[in-house]
Amino acid sequence: MTRAELVREIKTKKSFLCVGLDTDITKIPEHLLEDEDPIFSFNKAIVEATEDLCVAYKPNIAFYECYGVKGWQSLQKTWEILPKNCFSIADAKRGDIGNTSAMYAQAFFDQQVSGLGFDSITIAPYMGNDSVTPFLTSADKWAIVLALTSNVGSGDFQNITNGQGEQLFESVLQKVASWGTVDNTMFVVGATRGEAFLTVRKHVPDHFLLVPGVGAQGGSLQEVCRYGMNSNCGLLVNSTRGIIYASKGRDFAERARAEALLLQQEMQIELERAGIL
Amino acid sequence: MTRAELVREIKTKKSFLCVGLDTDITKIPEHLLEDEDPIFSFNKAIVEATEDLCVAYKPNIAFYECYGVKGWQSLQKTWEILPKNCFSIADAKRGDIGNTSAMYAQAFFDQQVSGLGFDSITIAPYMGNDSVTPFLTSADKWAIVLALTSNVGSGDFQNITNGQGEQLFESVLQKVASWGTVDNTMFVVGATRGEAFLTVRKHVPDHFLLVPGVGAQGGSLQEVCRYGMNSNCGLLVNSTRGIIYASKGRDFAERARAEALLLQQEMQIELERAGIL
Repeated sequence: MTRAELVREIKTKKSFLCVGLDTDITKIPEHLLEDEDPIFSFNKAIVEATEDLCVAYKPNIAFYECYGVKGWQSLQKTWEILPKNCFSIADAKRGDIGNTSAMYAQAFFDQQVSGLGFDSITIAPYMGNDSVTPFLTSADKWAIVLALTSNVGSGDFQNITNGQGEQLFESVLQKVASWGTVDNTMFVVGATRGEAFLTVRKHVPDHFLLVPGVGAQGGSLQEVCRYGMNSNCGLLVNSTRGIIYASKGRDFAERARAEALLLQQEMQIELERAGIL
Repeated sequence: MTRAELVREIKTKKSFLCVGLDTDITKIPEHLLEDEDPIFSFNKAIVEATEDLCVAYKPNIAFYECYGVKGWQSLQKTWEILPKNCFSIADAKRGDIGNTSAMYAQAFFDQQVSGLGFDSITIAPYMGNDSVTPFLTSADKWAIVLALTSNVGSGDFQNITNGQGEQLFESVLQKVASWGTVDNTMFVVGATRGEAFLTVRKHVPDHFLLVPGVGAQGGSLQEVCRYGMNSNCGLLVNSTRGIIYASKGRDFAERARAEALLLQQEMQIELERAGIL
């Protein structure tokens, strides 16, 4: 999916919601456990209940890989039912030396070979240029590079400051932005520190940002929009637990839809406030 | 495998060689392509030809994942034939927020659930403490954390220097060493910069280091040993291309063995020189 197509979807759906598909078999409704592939059944119901309210889906690959071959089968089936008008994100946090990153690009982008044709993949930047650039070779595929994450350990290295007073995540933003373009590169910036978006936007005013941490992790949608939104929206805000685990009963899909709708409505207000709608 | 067991294997085999199983279908002998699973056939022949000369095997997961479900089947079959007296390394470079890293630990350590029971996994440290510690919960499982890699982009972030004159890879060594122990944590340090081992050993004198980059990437085994070896050897030196692609003919396994033997003999000399044998 290209940037223009993504922006069009945001305006059409009045939403910049990304639904995380971190499907944990211990947290899904019990009645699904009798199905042949409970994880896929759960994902299918969630997607059908939310696809008109969100613009992106983001399965975290660990939640599939932890079941080995069987989990990869669930992942492939899930990818196959993701609506083609939604931006798909393989939340894989991969990254290796050049020729090996090219293999990971094949794994997640090249449907003919791997069975998966995601629009984008999340990337850990520690290994530098040749670990990132192999993901930037197709016009409609994206690298979403970790910059400032929302987890408790994020400060251990990401906030280390160099001699010029610049934090590591700022160096990542600057260097990675120079390797790609606003049409093939996004950054992960956690929602838990609203004012950090000011710093992020100094370095990458025009890039899209993938923002986890709204909801269960305590981030505020209003703060993220105040400091992070740009004239093309420039935000994909992810919610996982608040939506997909809204209920553990037979009404789980309906309740997921209700939670997604609340977020979509808040997002519409923010898009109107910014003059994007 | 515990540290004591690993050291015993090194002394028994007079070797600290790790053979990389980065099996690329475009580089393996043509006659294997008729097999049902050429990647597995290749790996099986390489393992049988080298298992008495090396102490570790390291499949890079990207080379399997790029074929999706089918690749994961090849990976599982490969894991199943790795000799139990060899240390097995899932070169996966994973790392995510705490609960998700725990899923990756399950993927590569918990054979009952995922089909894979590797001894260790390589980890990218960018996300900090909670991305690493979930891999440190079993007595005989290891996290092998990227510190100073050997690829061309390694300097982009790993050499960034903080206000105290300390490079990022040094901060990684110090912090990660404080989260784990010498019995469950190793570090990746590329062989291409021999003198860098002096800096590494200042921070982690007793840890094992996984060392890629000898051979095809230009690193010198002698330099690595001079600056990096400790009283328990403390090194696992990886070679991939120089061994597994020594020939593209029907003699590929035999030629792989010959190359592994040359390295084992050099390693024996180094172990004797250090008084470990």
